[in-house]
Amino acid sequence: MIVSFASDNTAGTSKEIIEAIAAANEGYVKPYAFDEYSNQSDVIFGKIFGDVTVCYTLSGTGANVVALKTMLRPWQGVICADIAHINTEEAGAPEVITGSKLLPVPSYNGKINIANMKQYLVDKNDFHKVSPRVVSITQSTEKGTLYTIDEIKEICDFAHENDLLVHMDGSRIANAVAALGCDIKAMTRDVGVDVLSFGGAKNGLIIGEAVVFFNKKLARDYMTMRKQSLQLISKMRFISAQFNEFFKNDLWLNNARHANSMAQYLAQELGKIKGLSVQEPDVNAVFVCMDKKLIDKLSQEFYFYVTNPEIKEVRFMSSFQTTKEEIDYLVQRIKSLAE
Amino acid sequence: MIVSFASDNTAGTSKEIIEAIAAANEGYVKPYAFDEYSNQSDVIFGKIFGDVTVCYTLSGTGANVVALKTMLRPWQGVICADIAHINTEEAGAPEVITGSKLLPVPSYNGKINIANMKQYLVDKNDFHKVSPRVVSITQSTEKGTLYTIDEIKEICDFAHENDLLVHMDGSRIANAVAALGCDIKAMTRDVGVDVLSFGGAKNGLIIGEAVVFFNKKLARDYMTMRKQSLQLISKMRFISAQFNEFFKNDLWLNNARHANSMAQYLAQELGKIKGLSVQEPDVNAVFVCMDKKLIDKLSQEFYFYVTNPEIKEVRFMSSFQTTKEEIDYLVQRIKSLAE
Amino acid sequence: MIVSFASDNTAGTSKEIIEAIAAANEGYVKPYAFDEYSNQSDVIFGKIFGDVTVCYTLSGTGANVVALKTMLRPWQGVICADIAHINTEEAGAPEVITGSKLLPVPSYNGKINIANMKQYLVDKNDFHKVSPRVVSITQSTEKGTLYTIDEIKEICDFAHENDLLVHMDGSRIANAVAALGCDIKAMTRDVGVDVLSFGGAKNGLIIGEAVVFFNKKLARDYMTMRKQSLQLISKMRFISAQFNEFFKNDLWLNNARHANSMAQYLAQELGKIKGLSVQEPDVNAVFVCMDKKLIDKLSQEFYFYVTNPEIKEVRFMSSFQTTKEEIDYLVQRIKSLAE
Amino acid sequence: MIVSFASDNTAGTSKEIIEAIAAANEGYVKPYAFDEYSNQSDVIFGKIFGDVTVCYTLSGTGANVVALKTMLRPWQGVICADIAHINTEEAGAPEVITGSKLLPVPSYNGKINIANMKQYLVDKNDFHKVSPRVVSITQSTEKGTLYTIDEIKEICDFAHENDLLVHMDGSRIANAVAALGCDIKAMTRDVGVDVLSFGGAKNGLIIGEAVVFFNKKLARDYMTMRKQSLQLISKMRFISAQFNEFFKNDLWLNNARHANSMAQYLAQELGKIKGLSVQEPDVNAVFVCMDKKLIDKLSQEFYFYVTNPEIKEVRFMSSFQTTKEEIDYLVQRIKSLAE
Repeated sequence: MIVSFASDNTAGTSKEIIEAIAAANEGYVKPYAFDEYSNQSDVIFGKIFGDVTVCYTLSGTGANVVALKTMLRPWQGVICADIAHINTEEAGAPEVITGSKLLPVPSYNGKINIANMKQYLVDKNDFHKVSPRVVSITQSTEKGTLYTIDEIKEICDFAHENDLLVHMDGSRIANAVAALGCDIKAMTRDVGVDVLSFGGAKNGLIIGEAVVFFNKKLARDYMTMRKQSLQLISKMRFISAQFNEFFKNDLWLNNARHANSMAQYLAQELGKIKGLSVQEPDVNAVFVCMDKKLIDKLSQEFYFYVTNPEIKEVRFMSSFQTTKEEIDYLVQRIKSLAE
Repeated sequence: MIVSFASDNTAGTSKEIIEAIAAANEGYVKPYAFDEYSNQSDVIFGKIFGDVTVCYTLSGTGANVVALKTMLRPWQGVICADIAHINTEEAGAPEVITGSKLLPVPSYNGKINIANMKQYLVDKNDFHKVSPRVVSITQSTEKGTLYTIDEIKEICDFAHENDLLVHMDGSRIANAVAALGCDIKAMTRDVGVDVLSFGGAKNGLIIGEAVVFFNKKLARDYMTMRKQSLQLISKMRFISAQFNEFFKNDLWLNNARHANSMAQYLAQELGKIKGLSVQEPDVNAVFVCMDKKLIDKLSQEFYFYVTNPEIKEVRFMSSFQTTKEEIDYLVQRIKSLAE
Repeated sequence: MIVSFASDNTAGTSKEIIEAIAAANEGYVKPYAFDEYSNQSDVIFGKIFGDVTVCYTLSGTGANVVALKTMLRPWQGVICADIAHINTEEAGAPEVITGSKLLPVPSYNGKINIANMKQYLVDKNDFHKVSPRVVSITQSTEKGTLYTIDEIKEICDFAHENDLLVHMDGSRIANAVAALGCDIKAMTRDVGVDVLSFGGAKNGLIIGEAVVFFNKKLARDYMTMRKQSLQLISKMRFISAQFNEFFKNDLWLNNARHANSMAQYLAQELGKIKGLSVQEPDVNAVFVCMDKKLIDKLSQEFYFYVTNPEIKEVRFMSSFQTTKEEIDYLVQRIKSLAE
Repeated sequence: MIVSFASDNTAGTSKEIIEAIAAANEGYVKPYAFDEYSNQSDVIFGKIFGDVTVCYTLSGTGANVVALKTMLRPWQGVICADIAHINTEEAGAPEVITGSKLLPVPSYNGKINIANMKQYLVDKNDFHKVSPRVVSITQSTEKGTLYTIDEIKEICDFAHENDLLVHMDGSRIANAVAALGCDIKAMTRDVGVDVLSFGGAKNGLIIGEAVVFFNKKLARDYMTMRKQSLQLISKMRFISAQFNEFFKNDLWLNNARHANSMAQYLAQELGKIKGLSVQEPDVNAVFVCMDKKLIDKLSQEFYFYVTNPEIKEVRFMSSFQTTKEEIDYLVQRIKSLAE
């Protein structure tokens, strides 16, 4: 297979994760997350976040749907970015499976602001309209950018003042934590996030995400709801075992740090090439504008996405698995092909 | 952990499956089942069943929901056994996620019959009622029994004569194939089944089921629908790699044969103990009636389910992992405790 | 048109109702039930039931769905009679539109009992199953029978002890009130009913039902929810005006009393005819078993339903509009045809 | 009650409609639209549109939902204007009750164009996204503007070339027909519309809309689906009788013509007042920008909506019931208050 910079999900998994799965394959254990591995995961999340309820799920979309479903009645809606993953990349699951409506607002570099949210609050008592109940933000964003902790706090404060709950889609939250160099609790619970979708697969797990309920009341019936939302498997020990390994020796953070640093290295090297317009990466995605012919040639040798054909923008995404050699090779090929 | 006869899902996975997962962890591959492992799985299913569309899913409930969702409009319903897994053990997902209604009929030893289905067809044009559109049967059944191939054919013929489709919940279909000693295609496609939920996890996979569409028209939009139904993960290679191993050297059949034979051995040994009433197992579940006090004592040493407290019936279920020694130990403890 | 005993919904409406509609057709009024007619209806319901929230709807199915939707999250279910209107005559709306599941129990003469409800409470914490949250009973029942007030209280007490809410489908509650000669509040709120679907159309309105929330917290968002559930029209004054007339001079009770008395008269007269087996009517439905040939002949002259072909049972239903002459004519024709 | 220019739904109904309802109140008729009044309505719609299936519904939102539900599977979506009634004024019913997703595009004077629709077709085979299946346009639009017949044809052609169906929300289609002076069939079926929501209540009916299926295959199961969608009442004769009257002597067209001409008269008179910015009305809505203080004073005497506070825009809407005297009075008051 050719080298891929398409997404962090084209990578495999860390060797330690495979070993953890193999190690969990011993004897009989209770199904449905009543096993020792799952208990251990709960303890770990508790150490990180304090008193929380954690609901392990199978996919990022699954995590978002489970999170939102606990927060919503059918006549309530979710304010989110127009380009939010839940709005554009989840095949309508957030509407169809939760049975409610998304309320998109414009985004700027992937981020949303309070001014734009207000349009939905003017009419909050208008019974012809879905009642906004949740604000969902993505950290790091779909555009590879970051909210500052202050920005998150400001959104949470605004939300709570308006009787709204805050969901954070953190499918790449590890990259955000690594980039901001802060504590994950300081970026989420401490500033008012109510429910977090904590990502695993994009940061090196095979399969596994976790919905972390800071607002535990919302989680009351999560077990029945997760089952109904098709996010429960019997052999949950193999999910939990991955998470336990993830947090041992800071694998999750090291994976994210590595991915981020590879993106920075790539951006730095690409910046040296004439004719490319390189956007400084906040986390692990490098957006570059380049000549159409160059894109075409390059796409025969590497796997990556054209994110905006009009401005000839492509995205190179690094992962825990990306090596300096792979980047050097990519940069060298771009140089050659550009000539 | 104590020895478990609670369900075949308290077991782990075959060693070969772990190795297959480890082997699949190499390089970059396209996400969302566009990888070589998934292509290979498709080829294998094609060899077994002929020209089919296969949709890999994450859980058995997920497989059933995806299968049914392709077959139904919201005003159509599913005739199924009152005790069907879809009716009692899937937390309402078949109704809520497909957005339709189940139409239960009485079951006898886990099986349903045509006479009882007819009540829903009398009113087929009554617009006050959900229109029956699918008959769903489980093979092997929730009671550990089997439909004969002729019985399946009879149900399929009846269904098709009445413009109904047939779904088979085959979460334990390997056990059925092993028990009946027939070809799996002969038990499904050849007698008229339209869509099959092919089980993996209960027969030794870590995670993974497959919806097999014999009626390929139904599968037209399955990719979007699977994503919406929260059954798609990015790193599908790790699901497909399990299936590929499953079919290599007949692992799937050998696992099922072993589980079945262990159940037969257990039934035979229990049959020798006075005071127990043992039901002859068709597949890998042994139902036994025994003294209440014995049940209580035994449940402190083993993990199993009381399936009917009124008649003091318990279920011992074997799996690919169950050993003769474990059964001997169980039998010996029952003997001791019974005295 | 031939005389109809098919259902109370084959009748038209009282002359007073037409006049009330005509009188309401004056000037401009605020749409969506913010008009004076609707305010007046609210006051009337308040006088009858005390402090309540009333949500006017368009159909009986609509009333039931709105009522249930306020009480349920998607993973919760509704215990009801197997023959309940919500289970068999509403085309799946209670499942599909509320997004939850019905949990049927056997019925005896249309009524359900606590013993049968308990099966769903054994497993109340089993996350593989929908959690029961509501008990729904019909008064008067689909079989034309009645719960006593004590029976209703017993069910409500049981429900509340088990953290369940009680819904009453009262599409024919006026007939029940007339038959039992009690106060409607004594039969509903006073014994613990949480939400009542109060019927209009089967008792002489053109169109219009009312969901009465005794548990007002449940009604918090009813306006948005009613709109979403397609039960809101702009010109609600024409619904409210009907209700106002309905309660003036006890039209609603007089209509029901008349329908009931006509059924009693019919049963009495039919009882005199040899060869008929007549069930004593509690309200306005007379169930009669008669010769198959007689049924066939009669159905060419009158409009009525065969409710059970096996036992040759037919149903004659009276309405506010049924006259003694129509009944005499029916009885006379049966006599003639029976000879 | 003060004079209302808030909406055409603050009016009552034509005297003839009341008389038609009274006349339909005779004898017994079959419920659920199997009566003679409903047969007659079907014949009338057939004369207007040719061979169609007509599904009468209770509200405009109900009509839209029923129309869309027949056209969609859950993983398919509806391209519509950002300001479409289905997107902003139906409390999420189009998503929640059909179980699918709306795909909004920008609108210009209420209208959408093909260029903007194309964004959803680029990704038509992207299984991460809802598949567009329907284009929904509103005629006349929410902004009181009109598509020309050519524009409708162009959209229909584009839709069909891309395997999309076309829905027209015609809650005010009579106003469009009156304004364009064309045949209603020429504006809908003849140019390719597949399903039309034909409006009644905003043009003078008490209650009643009709979904007209030009593509009859879509309507196959409409009766069960209407019941499930809570749009069926038993006494449908009282809906059909209104429609029959509506079409007798062109009442529907005369109502619309009158409303349109009143709007034109109002615009003409307001145009004479200095300081007002008046938008020329296409149908029965006049948008006017005026001084904030004037708005405040005026709203104490008349009932109307402020449609855009930022530009101080208000909407005056006329109806079949609006009189020249009412308009003269409004104009005179504006003049007085403006001074």
